[in-house]
Amino acid sequence: MEFSTIDIQNMEQRYRARFINSLSGFKSVGLVGTVDSKGLDNLAIFSSAFHLGADPALLGLIVRPDSVPRHTLSNILDVGEYSFNHIHKSFIKKAHQCSARYDKLESEFDMVGLNREYKNGMKAPFVKESQLKLYLKYREHHELKINGTILIIGEVLYVKFSEDYLREDGSIDIEKAQSVTTSGLDTYHSTSQVMRLSYAKPDKELKEL
Amino acid sequence: MEFSTIDIQNMEQRYRARFINSLSGFKSVGLVGTVDSKGLDNLAIFSSAFHLGADPALLGLIVRPDSVPRHTLSNILDVGEYSFNHIHKSFIKKAHQCSARYDKLESEFDMVGLNREYKNGMKAPFVKESQLKLYLKYREHHELKINGTILIIGEVLYVKFSEDYLREDGSIDIEKAQSVTTSGLDTYHSTSQVMRLSYAKPDKELKEL
Repeated sequence: MEFSTIDIQNMEQRYRARFINSLSGFKSVGLVGTVDSKGLDNLAIFSSAFHLGADPALLGLIVRPDSVPRHTLSNILDVGEYSFNHIHKSFIKKAHQCSARYDKLESEFDMVGLNREYKNGMKAPFVKESQLKLYLKYREHHELKINGTILIIGEVLYVKFSEDYLREDGSIDIEKAQSVTTSGLDTYHSTSQVMRLSYAKPDKELKEL
Repeated sequence: MEFSTIDIQNMEQRYRARFINSLSGFKSVGLVGTVDSKGLDNLAIFSSAFHLGADPALLGLIVRPDSVPRHTLSNILDVGEYSFNHIHKSFIKKAHQCSARYDKLESEFDMVGLNREYKNGMKAPFVKESQLKLYLKYREHHELKINGTILIIGEVLYVKFSEDYLREDGSIDIEKAQSVTTSGLDTYHSTSQVMRLSYAKPDKELKEL
Protein backbone atom coordinates (compact mmCIF):
# COMPACT_ATOMS: atom_id res chain seq x y z
CA MET A 1 0.00 0.00 0.00
CA GLU A 2 1.08 3.58 -0.67
CA PHE A 3 0.84 6.79 1.35
CA SER A 4 1.29 10.29 -0.05
CA THR A 5 2.09 13.54 1.74
CA ILE A 6 -1.64 14.26 1.94
CA ASP A 7 -2.40 10.81 3.40
CA ILE A 8 0.24 11.47 6.07
CA GLN A 9 -1.04 14.96 6.83
CA ASN A 10 -4.60 13.65 7.19
CA MET A 11 -3.67 11.02 9.77
CA GLU A 12 -4.93 11.53 13.32
CA GLN A 13 -2.06 12.87 15.46
CA ARG A 14 -1.28 9.75 17.56
CA TYR A 15 -1.79 7.47 14.55
CA ARG A 16 0.70 9.56 12.57
CA ALA A 17 3.21 9.55 15.45
CA ARG A 18 3.12 5.73 15.54
CA PHE A 19 3.33 5.49 11.76
CA ILE A 20 6.20 7.93 11.23
CA ASN A 21 8.16 6.61 14.23
CA SER A 22 8.17 3.18 12.54
CA LEU A 23 9.77 4.32 9.30
CA SER A 24 13.41 4.82 10.27
CA GLY A 25 13.85 1.14 11.16
CA PHE A 26 15.04 -0.42 14.40
CA LYS A 27 16.39 2.17 16.80
CA SER A 28 19.24 2.51 19.29
CA VAL A 29 17.71 2.82 22.71
CA GLY A 30 19.25 3.69 26.05
CA LEU A 31 18.69 5.30 29.42
CA VAL A 32 20.33 8.69 29.93
CA GLY A 33 21.28 9.45 33.54
CA THR A 34 21.73 13.08 34.58
CA VAL A 35 21.87 15.21 37.73
CA ASP A 36 21.18 18.90 38.33
CA SER A 37 23.47 21.31 40.18
CA LYS A 38 21.56 20.63 43.43
CA GLY A 39 22.08 16.87 43.18
CA LEU A 40 18.59 15.83 42.01
CA ASP A 41 18.95 13.07 39.45
CA ASN A 42 16.92 12.01 36.45
CA LEU A 43 16.70 9.01 34.14
CA ALA A 44 15.17 9.25 30.66
CA ILE A 45 14.70 6.79 27.82
CA PHE A 46 16.02 7.85 24.41
CA SER A 47 15.48 6.01 21.14
CA SER A 48 17.44 8.46 19.03
CA ALA A 49 21.06 7.81 19.96
CA PHE A 50 23.46 7.67 17.03
CA HIS A 51 27.14 7.32 16.29
CA LEU A 52 28.70 10.60 15.14
CA GLY A 53 32.39 9.79 14.97
CA ALA A 54 35.14 7.62 16.44
CA ASP A 55 37.95 10.16 16.92
CA PRO A 56 36.91 12.04 18.94
CA ALA A 57 34.35 9.46 20.08
CA LEU A 58 31.01 11.23 19.71
CA LEU A 59 27.40 10.22 20.34
CA GLY A 60 24.38 12.24 19.20
CA LEU A 61 20.99 12.41 20.95
CA ILE A 62 17.80 14.13 19.80
CA VAL A 63 15.62 15.87 22.40
CA ARG A 64 12.20 17.34 21.82
CA PRO A 65 12.00 20.33 24.16
CA ASP A 66 8.29 19.77 24.78
CA SER A 67 8.66 16.07 25.61
CA VAL A 68 9.54 14.21 28.77
CA PRO A 69 13.33 14.36 28.52
CA ARG A 70 13.30 18.13 29.06
CA HIS A 71 14.85 17.62 32.53
CA THR A 72 17.63 15.71 30.81
CA LEU A 73 18.47 18.63 28.55
CA SER A 74 18.57 21.22 31.34
CA ASN A 75 20.66 18.91 33.55
CA ILE A 76 23.15 18.25 30.74
CA LEU A 77 23.49 21.98 30.10
CA ASP A 78 23.86 22.67 33.86
CA VAL A 79 26.34 19.98 34.79
CA GLY A 80 27.96 19.10 31.45
CA GLU A 81 28.07 15.31 32.00
CA TYR A 82 25.73 12.35 31.57
CA SER A 83 25.61 8.58 31.36
CA PHE A 84 24.18 6.41 28.57
CA ASN A 85 23.11 2.91 29.61
CA HIS A 86 22.04 0.04 27.35
CA ILE A 87 18.68 -1.58 28.11
CA HIS A 88 18.32 -5.36 28.39
CA LYS A 89 15.48 -7.84 28.27
CA SER A 90 15.46 -8.08 32.09
CA PHE A 91 14.34 -4.48 32.69
CA ILE A 92 12.43 -3.33 29.60
CA LYS A 93 9.30 -2.42 31.60
CA LYS A 94 11.24 -0.33 34.10
CA ALA A 95 13.06 1.43 31.27
CA HIS A 96 9.83 2.15 29.38
CA GLN A 97 8.21 3.49 32.55
CA CYS A 98 10.93 6.21 32.62
CA SER A 99 8.99 7.88 29.78
CA ALA A 100 6.13 8.80 32.16
CA ARG A 101 5.92 12.52 33.02
CA TYR A 102 7.20 12.48 36.56
CA ASP A 103 7.60 15.66 38.53
CA LYS A 104 11.07 17.21 38.59
CA LEU A 105 11.39 16.33 42.31
CA GLU A 106 10.68 12.65 41.69
CA SER A 107 13.65 10.68 40.40
CA GLU A 108 12.82 8.00 37.84
CA PHE A 109 15.35 5.73 39.58
CA ASP A 110 13.07 5.61 42.63
CA MET A 111 9.80 5.68 40.69
CA VAL A 112 10.59 2.74 38.40
CA GLY A 113 12.89 0.80 40.73
CA LEU A 114 16.26 0.89 38.99
CA ASN A 115 19.49 1.26 40.96
CA ARG A 116 22.02 4.08 40.79
CA GLU A 117 25.71 3.37 40.35
CA TYR A 118 28.37 6.03 40.86
CA LYS A 119 31.96 6.28 39.68
CA ASN A 120 34.68 8.35 41.23
CA GLY A 121 34.87 11.82 39.70
CA MET A 122 31.68 11.40 37.65
CA LYS A 123 28.67 13.40 38.79
CA ALA A 124 25.78 11.75 36.92
CA PRO A 125 24.51 8.31 37.98
CA PHE A 126 24.72 5.14 35.90
CA VAL A 127 22.08 2.41 35.84
CA LYS A 128 23.52 -0.44 37.88
CA GLU A 129 21.47 -3.06 36.00
CA SER A 130 22.90 -2.04 32.61
CA GLN A 131 25.53 -4.35 31.10
CA LEU A 132 27.06 -1.69 28.84
CA LYS A 133 27.37 1.87 30.03
CA LEU A 134 29.06 5.01 28.80
CA TYR A 135 29.89 8.31 30.39
CA LEU A 136 29.84 11.42 28.26
CA LYS A 137 30.96 15.00 28.42
CA TYR A 138 28.64 17.51 26.79
CA ARG A 139 30.35 19.09 23.78
CA GLU A 140 27.73 21.10 21.91
CA HIS A 141 24.08 21.32 20.96
CA HIS A 142 22.21 22.56 17.91
CA GLU A 143 18.64 23.70 17.73
CA LEU A 144 17.08 22.35 14.55
CA LYS A 145 14.79 25.22 13.65
CA ILE A 146 12.72 23.10 11.29
CA ASN A 147 10.82 21.62 14.24
CA GLY A 148 12.47 22.88 17.43
CA THR A 149 14.23 19.60 18.26
CA ILE A 150 17.68 19.78 19.79
CA LEU A 151 20.71 17.72 18.82
CA ILE A 152 23.03 17.11 21.78
CA ILE A 153 26.57 15.97 21.02
CA GLY A 154 28.64 14.30 23.72
CA GLU A 155 32.14 12.88 23.84
CA VAL A 156 32.63 9.39 25.29
CA LEU A 157 34.92 9.63 28.34
CA TYR A 158 34.42 6.20 29.86
CA VAL A 159 32.99 2.79 28.90
CA LYS A 160 32.20 -0.21 31.10
CA PHE A 161 31.07 -3.73 30.14
CA SER A 162 31.89 -7.37 30.81
CA GLU A 163 35.06 -8.50 29.02
CA ASP A 164 33.13 -11.43 27.52
CA TYR A 165 31.57 -8.99 25.07
CA LEU A 166 34.79 -7.61 23.57
CA ARG A 167 35.95 -9.25 20.33
CA GLU A 168 39.63 -9.33 19.37
CA ASP A 169 39.15 -6.74 16.64
CA GLY A 170 37.71 -4.09 19.02
CA SER A 171 34.03 -4.60 18.18
CA ILE A 172 31.64 -5.28 21.05
CA ASP A 173 29.13 -8.12 20.87
CA ILE A 174 26.11 -6.14 22.06
CA GLU A 175 23.85 -9.08 21.22
CA LYS A 176 25.75 -11.20 23.75
CA ALA A 177 25.15 -8.34 26.21
CA GLN A 178 21.44 -8.86 25.44
CA SER A 179 20.94 -5.20 24.60
CA VAL A 180 17.51 -4.59 23.08
CA THR A 181 16.38 -2.45 20.16
CA THR A 182 13.04 -0.67 19.64
CA SER A 183 10.68 0.04 16.79
CA GLY A 184 7.98 2.67 16.66
CA LEU A 185 7.02 4.15 20.02
CA ASP A 186 6.39 1.07 22.11
CA THR A 187 7.93 -2.16 20.80
CA TYR A 188 11.08 -3.82 22.15
CA HIS A 189 12.99 -6.55 20.33
CA SER A 190 15.88 -8.88 21.05
CA THR A 191 18.20 -9.79 18.15
CA SER A 192 19.71 -12.81 16.39
CA GLN A 193 22.92 -12.31 14.49
CA VAL A 194 22.51 -13.13 10.80
CA MET A 195 26.05 -12.39 9.63
CA ARG A 196 29.21 -10.34 10.00
CA LEU A 197 30.79 -9.22 6.77
CA SER A 198 34.29 -8.17 5.76
CA TYR A 199 35.11 -4.59 4.70
CA ALA A 200 33.61 -4.08 1.23
CA LYS A 201 35.87 -3.29 -1.75
CA PRO A 202 35.01 -3.07 -5.44
CA ASP A 203 35.80 -6.30 -7.31
CA LYS A 204 36.35 -8.27 -4.13
CA GLU A 205 33.97 -10.90 -2.79
CA LEU A 206 32.64 -10.32 0.74
CA LYS A 207 33.64 -12.85 3.38
CA GLU A 208 31.53 -13.86 6.33
CA LEU A 209 33.57 -13.24 9.51
CA MET B 1 36.18 -4.03 32.11
CA GLU B 2 36.60 -0.27 31.99
CA PHE B 3 38.00 2.09 29.37
CA SER B 4 39.03 5.69 30.02
CA THR B 5 39.52 8.57 27.58
CA ILE B 6 43.21 7.71 27.40
CA ASP B 7 42.49 4.03 26.69
CA ILE B 8 40.22 5.11 23.83
CA GLN B 9 42.74 7.59 22.44
CA ASN B 10 45.46 4.93 22.51
CA MET B 11 43.46 2.41 20.47
CA GLU B 12 44.68 1.66 16.94
CA GLN B 13 42.48 3.54 14.45
CA ARG B 14 40.45 0.63 13.00
CA TYR B 15 40.15 -0.99 16.43
CA ARG B 16 38.76 2.27 17.84
CA ALA B 17 36.34 2.64 14.91
CA ARG B 18 34.90 -0.84 15.61
CA PHE B 19 34.77 -0.20 19.35
CA ILE B 20 33.12 3.23 19.24
CA ASN B 21 30.68 2.20 16.50
CA SER B 22 29.39 -0.53 18.84
CA LEU B 23 28.51 1.79 21.72
CA SER B 24 25.31 3.46 20.51
CA GLY B 25 23.42 0.15 20.39
CA PHE B 26 21.58 -1.45 17.48
CA LYS B 27 21.25 0.92 14.53
CA SER B 28 18.67 1.85 11.93
CA VAL B 29 20.04 0.82 8.57
CA GLY B 30 18.84 1.52 5.07
CA LEU B 31 19.85 2.08 1.46
CA VAL B 32 19.65 5.65 0.20
CA GLY B 33 18.92 5.97 -3.52
CA THR B 34 19.88 9.19 -5.31
CA VAL B 35 20.45 10.52 -8.81
CA ASP B 36 22.51 13.44 -10.12
CA SER B 37 21.27 16.12 -12.49
CA LYS B 38 22.61 14.09 -15.47
CA GLY B 39 20.68 10.98 -14.47
CA LEU B 40 23.53 8.90 -12.99
CA ASP B 41 22.22 7.10 -9.94
CA ASN B 42 23.80 5.98 -6.70
CA LEU B 43 22.92 3.66 -3.84
CA ALA B 44 24.57 3.98 -0.41
CA ILE B 45 24.15 2.17 2.89
CA PHE B 46 23.50 4.33 5.96
CA SER B 47 23.42 3.12 9.54
CA SER B 48 22.66 6.51 11.04
CA ALA B 49 19.03 7.17 10.11
CA PHE B 50 16.91 8.58 12.91
CA HIS B 51 13.42 9.87 13.54
CA LEU B 52 13.33 13.65 13.94
CA GLY B 53 9.63 14.41 14.13
CA ALA B 54 6.19 13.23 13.01
CA ASP B 55 4.60 16.53 11.92
CA PRO B 56 6.20 17.39 9.60
CA ALA B 57 7.48 13.84 9.10
CA LEU B 58 11.27 14.19 9.25
CA LEU B 59 14.15 11.75 8.99
CA GLY B 60 17.77 12.60 9.82
CA LEU B 61 20.87 11.08 8.22
CA ILE B 62 24.52 11.60 9.12
CA VAL B 63 27.09 11.77 6.32
CA ARG B 64 30.85 11.86 6.71
CA PRO B 65 32.09 13.99 3.83
CA ASP B 66 35.26 11.91 3.49
CA SER B 67 33.43 8.58 3.42
CA VAL B 68 31.75 6.59 0.67
CA PRO B 69 28.33 8.28 0.74
CA ARG B 70 29.82 11.54 -0.56
CA HIS B 71 28.06 10.99 -3.92
CA THR B 72 24.83 10.71 -1.97
CA LEU B 73 25.30 14.13 -0.39
CA SER B 74 26.11 15.92 -3.64
CA ASN B 75 23.19 14.21 -5.43
CA ILE B 76 20.76 15.17 -2.65
CA LEU B 77 21.93 18.78 -2.78
CA ASP B 78 21.71 18.80 -6.61
CA VAL B 79 18.34 17.16 -7.08
CA GLY B 80 16.65 17.68 -3.70
CA GLU B 81 15.04 14.22 -3.48
CA TYR B 82 16.05 10.72 -2.37
CA SER B 83 14.68 7.32 -1.39
CA PHE B 84 15.28 5.39 1.83
CA ASN B 85 14.84 1.62 1.58
CA HIS B 86 14.79 -0.91 4.41
CA ILE B 87 17.22 -3.83 4.14
CA HIS B 88 16.06 -7.43 4.66
CA LYS B 89 17.70 -10.73 5.40
CA SER B 90 17.45 -11.74 1.72
CA PHE B 91 19.87 -9.08 0.45
CA ILE B 92 22.22 -8.16 3.30
CA LYS B 93 25.37 -8.98 1.31
CA LYS B 94 24.28 -6.85 -1.66
CA ALA B 95 23.41 -3.99 0.68
CA HIS B 96 26.75 -4.22 2.51
CA GLN B 97 28.63 -4.30 -0.81
CA CYS B 98 27.19 -0.81 -1.52
CA SER B 99 29.74 0.51 1.01
CA ALA B 100 32.62 -0.26 -1.40
CA ARG B 101 34.23 2.80 -2.99
CA TYR B 102 32.90 2.55 -6.51
CA ASP B 103 33.71 5.15 -9.09
CA LYS B 104 31.14 7.90 -9.63
CA LEU B 105 30.33 6.47 -13.09
CA GLU B 106 29.55 3.00 -11.70
CA SER B 107 26.12 2.68 -10.17
CA GLU B 108 25.93 0.47 -7.08
CA PHE B 109 22.64 -0.92 -8.44
CA ASP B 110 24.57 -2.56 -11.28
CA MET B 111 27.67 -3.37 -9.27
CA VAL B 112 25.90 -5.24 -6.46
CA GLY B 113 22.92 -6.54 -8.44
CA LEU B 114 19.94 -4.78 -6.89
CA ASN B 115 17.04 -3.59 -9.04
CA ARG B 116 15.83 -0.04 -9.55
CA GLU B 117 12.17 0.87 -9.13
CA TYR B 118 10.75 4.21 -10.26
CA LYS B 119 7.59 6.08 -9.32
CA ASN B 120 5.85 8.69 -11.35
CA GLY B 121 7.11 12.19 -10.56
CA MET B 122 9.96 10.97 -8.35
CA LYS B 123 13.46 11.35 -9.76
CA ALA B 124 15.53 9.12 -7.48
CA PRO B 125 15.31 5.33 -7.77
CA PHE B 126 13.96 2.99 -5.09
CA VAL B 127 15.32 -0.49 -4.37
CA LYS B 128 12.79 -2.91 -5.85
CA GLU B 129 13.74 -5.69 -3.38
CA SER B 130 12.97 -3.51 -0.34
CA GLN B 131 9.71 -4.24 1.49
CA LEU B 132 9.44 -0.80 3.11
CA LYS B 133 10.52 2.28 1.21
CA LEU B 134 10.25 6.01 1.70
CA TYR B 135 10.70 8.97 -0.58
CA LEU B 136 12.05 12.17 0.89
CA LYS B 137 12.43 15.78 -0.05
CA TYR B 138 15.62 17.47 1.13
CA ARG B 139 14.80 20.16 3.69
CA GLU B 140 18.06 21.32 5.23
CA HIS B 141 21.54 20.27 6.26
CA HIS B 142 23.87 21.27 9.06
CA GLU B 143 27.61 20.92 9.15
CA LEU B 144 28.64 19.75 12.60
CA LYS B 145 31.92 21.62 13.01
CA ILE B 146 33.07 19.37 15.84
CA ASN B 147 34.12 16.69 13.33
CA GLY B 148 32.97 17.81 9.89
CA THR B 149 30.03 15.41 9.66
CA ILE B 150 26.86 16.61 7.99
CA LEU B 151 23.31 16.15 9.22
CA ILE B 152 20.82 15.92 6.35
CA ILE B 153 17.16 16.45 7.19
CA GLY B 154 14.47 15.22 4.80
CA GLU B 155 10.69 15.27 4.83
CA VAL B 156 8.82 12.04 4.10
CA LEU B 157 6.67 12.54 0.97
CA TYR B 158 5.73 8.96 0.19
CA VAL B 159 5.75 5.54 1.89
CA LYS B 160 5.19 2.08 0.38
CA PHE B 161 4.91 -1.32 2.08
CA SER B 162 2.69 -4.39 2.14
CA GLU B 163 -0.58 -3.80 3.99
CA ASP B 164 0.11 -6.90 6.12
CA TYR B 165 2.60 -4.81 8.10
CA LEU B 166 0.24 -2.01 9.14
CA ARG B 167 -1.33 -2.36 12.59
CA GLU B 168 -4.70 -0.81 13.40
CA ASP B 169 -3.12 1.90 15.56
CA GLY B 170 -0.87 3.21 12.76
CA SER B 171 2.35 1.48 13.83
CA ILE B 172 4.16 -0.65 11.26
CA ASP B 173 5.37 -4.14 12.12
CA ILE B 174 8.86 -3.79 10.68
CA GLU B 175 9.81 -7.14 12.19
CA LYS B 176 7.13 -8.80 10.07
CA ALA B 177 8.70 -6.99 7.11
CA GLN B 178 11.95 -8.75 8.14
CA SER B 179 13.87 -5.49 8.22
CA VAL B 180 17.31 -5.97 9.71
CA THR B 181 19.31 -3.91 12.20
CA THR B 182 23.10 -3.51 12.48
CA SER B 183 25.67 -3.21 15.23
CA GLY B 184 29.18 -1.90 14.94
CA LEU B 185 30.50 -1.63 11.40
CA ASP B 186 29.81 -5.06 10.00
CA THR B 187 27.17 -7.09 11.86
CA TYR B 188 23.57 -7.62 10.75
CA HIS B 189 20.80 -8.94 12.99
CA SER B 190 17.21 -10.06 12.65
CA THR B 191 14.87 -9.37 15.57
CA SER B 192 12.34 -11.14 17.85
CA GLN B 193 9.66 -9.04 19.47
CA VAL B 194 9.89 -9.20 23.27
CA MET B 195 6.98 -6.91 24.12
CA ARG B 196 4.86 -3.90 23.19
CA LEU B 197 3.99 -1.61 26.07
CA SER B 198 1.23 0.91 26.70
CA TYR B 199 1.91 4.66 26.96
CA ALA B 200 3.61 5.24 30.33
CA LYS B 201 1.98 7.42 32.98
CA PRO B 202 3.02 8.05 36.60
CA ASP B 203 1.09 5.83 39.06
CA LYS B 204 -0.30 3.62 36.31
CA GLU B 205 0.82 0.09 35.64
CA LEU B 206 2.09 -0.65 32.12
CA LYS B 207 0.09 -3.06 30.01
CA GLU B 208 1.49 -5.40 27.41
CA LEU B 209 -0.25 -4.69 24.11
